Amino acid sequence: MADKPSRGLADIVAASTAISDIDGRAGLLFYRGYDIHQLAGAATFEEVAFLLQRGHPPSAAELDAYRAEAAAAQVPGKLVTACLADVAASQGPMEALRTLVSLASADDPDKNSNAPEANARKAVRLTAQQPVLVAAYHAARSGREVPPPADGLGLAEGFLLQMRGSPPAAHEAQLLDTCLVLHADHTMNASTFAARVCAATLSDMHSAVVAAIGTLKGPLHGGANEQVMRTLTEIRSAAPGDPVDEVAREVTRRLAAGEKIMGFGHRVYKTEDPRATHLRAMSGELAQASGDDTFYRMSRRMEEVVLAEKGLLPNVDFYAATVYHYLGIPTDLFTGVFSVSRMAGWTAHVIEQHADNRLIRPDSEYIGERGLTWIPVGQR
Amino acid sequence: MADKPSRGLADIVAASTAISDIDGRAGLLFYRGYDIHQLAGAATFEEVAFLLQRGHPPSAAELDAYRAEAAAAQVPGKLVTACLADVAASQGPMEALRTLVSLASADDPDKNSNAPEANARKAVRLTAQQPVLVAAYHAARSGREVPPPADGLGLAEGFLLQMRGSPPAAHEAQLLDTCLVLHADHTMNASTFAARVCAATLSDMHSAVVAAIGTLKGPLHGGANEQVMRTLTEIRSAAPGDPVDEVAREVTRRLAAGEKIMGFGHRVYKTEDPRATHLRAMSGELAQASGDDTFYRMSRRMEEVVLAEKGLLPNVDFYAATVYHYLGIPTDLFTGVFSVSRMAGWTAHVIEQHADNRLIRPDSEYIGERGLTWIPVGQR
Repeated sequence: MADKPSRGLADIVAASTAISDIDGRAGLLFYRGYDIHQLAGAATFEEVAFLLQRGHPPSAAELDAYRAEAAAAQVPGKLVTACLADVAASQGPMEALRTLVSLASADDPDKNSNAPEANARKAVRLTAQQPVLVAAYHAARSGREVPPPADGLGLAEGFLLQMRGSPPAAHEAQLLDTCLVLHADHTMNASTFAARVCAATLSDMHSAVVAAIGTLKGPLHGGANEQVMRTLTEIRSAAPGDPVDEVAREVTRRLAAGEKIMGFGHRVYKTEDPRATHLRAMSGELAQASGDDTFYRMSRRMEEVVLAEKGLLPNVDFYAATVYHYLGIPTDLFTGVFSVSRMAGWTAHVIEQHADNRLIRPDSEYIGERGLTWIPVGQR
Repeated sequence: MADKPSRGLADIVAASTAISDIDGRAGLLFYRGYDIHQLAGAATFEEVAFLLQRGHPPSAAELDAYRAEAAAAQVPGKLVTACLADVAASQGPMEALRTLVSLASADDPDKNSNAPEANARKAVRLTAQQPVLVAAYHAARSGREVPPPADGLGLAEGFLLQMRGSPPAAHEAQLLDTCLVLHADHTMNASTFAARVCAATLSDMHSAVVAAIGTLKGPLHGGANEQVMRTLTEIRSAAPGDPVDEVAREVTRRLAAGEKIMGFGHRVYKTEDPRATHLRAMSGELAQASGDDTFYRMSRRMEEVVLAEKGLLPNVDFYAATVYHYLGIPTDLFTGVFSVSRMAGWTAHVIEQHADNRLIRPDSEYIGERGLTWIPVGQR
């Protein structure tokens, strides 16, 4: 038994998993044995969600059945519908998603079972429901109706339609789909680990996923992409001249002042995050198509400066920020979009945890006072 | 770097803490250096919550101020009030508490801050609010109004009043208060650990506590006390003769069949759980007062059989079940009452995590397939 804590559990192997794997030295990420570079642009998010949750790529018939299950889950349940307007009026996006998924368990017919078949069904429903919840929340706070889910659209395209209120261009839907693939799982990240800690008490999938959403909310995890966009926007709007020059000056200044620049570095990658490679290319492509590539050029410059000054490479959050921006997603929904994707991984990990469970209950090192004597309050 | 997983993180020291400490060999539990045996019956739950959250026992003036803060937080916020009836009509108790606490962040003036002062205020509010949420949920599903919080009552007494709809006897309030003290914290138990994993992304206290509630919900954690009561009730109602004889037969039969009997054994205690010692005495006392000590006598017999057959001692959940039962708490609210108490510890751990934070992100061991080639779905 170790007496000294492993702060942050860095390098502690907390679980065995067959869902995803990272080779931090080589900068590689695998889902169920498939290199993410093979999947990006080639597999749809639904195929990847199936792969993660069920352990193998779907046959054509399995994929059709999965899509049909997903489509059936895209109408919010009664309790979500009853509370949505009140929630949207008074909670921020991640608060609201935490609440809405917690509400959604009420109308899930499998809510009282952790059996493998029940978990498989809940995983599809939660994955299909999450983009609808993000879009419905945004529509509700914007005072408009969300368009009904359109038949035959992929989850990414359906989300852009419902979130914006009008159909996206084909290349936009395709790029968001790739984004969802890239963010779908990432071994024992904090939100996934929270989901597994919860599931390991044999609590249910909704509880585990609600824990994960609250965990993703933190600025050291899912919240980072929003902060990247806020930094870019702030520097651009304050720039007296060329924002690309300004970003170099400002980032140099912040680094010299000891400030942290969000979107760089990762505990597990020693070289470029393979997801960043794709997101950088997608950001460039969308920037071109948008007719205003300023944020993209600012990002490239920022990347150069942070590499030169700190030796840090961009992580998944850095170019995801401008990709989401060019896709017309409001900055405060970026983490919500991350949750749309990571839902595939969270649910897969709950299935895996329940299939071979042991309670997750670490030790702690006590560093406080000892041997005190309690004195009644009147005599203190 | 360890390559083999520490299943369940058993014996892995995940964090340093000055909040509580367990001596598993001696069967001792300490809060901030005070032996639980000193606190049980001598300190009120409010004093213990203050002790855990602020690090020292309150002076008389500090305790008055803490009680005033708590009293002010006992009126549910607007969003909780708006959704309560719908939630109570369609969610079970722990689902509902997870939802209601997630809703409650909307009306917390400090929701966007993790600063120490903001966290201290949120900790009081969450601790004071939890018994009101349990009682309001129960009243709403029972179709009655919850009595307004009465001035000057302790949290335990106020809870019994609001939950039942009529004032409890003085000894009942006092015994529940002691129960709350005994359950208030327990180092890195699964729900507390989930709260810390969440808080370590610098997510907020409400998110962390919502994660903890979902984790406590599991039958391997907070759900165990409810199962103890269900087992006792089931055996008693099926007993052809004396239920005390029947419990011995039935437990022997279940153990022989390899079934698990809930409420016995604990990963960290090698001798009697010090909380069980107090709860056994309280259960006996309440049984006497109730005029029907059958469940207590059944519990004593069950304890003897499980010790003789398996060498396992009762844990905190075992006698908590009958204590709650004799206090008139419906069985399906037992885990909710546990959450009322553990809220003091959860919030203290979030404060401690935020005060000296590092992201909690363990490694995993990959055990799946490798080097697969993705084939488009049409060609599979």
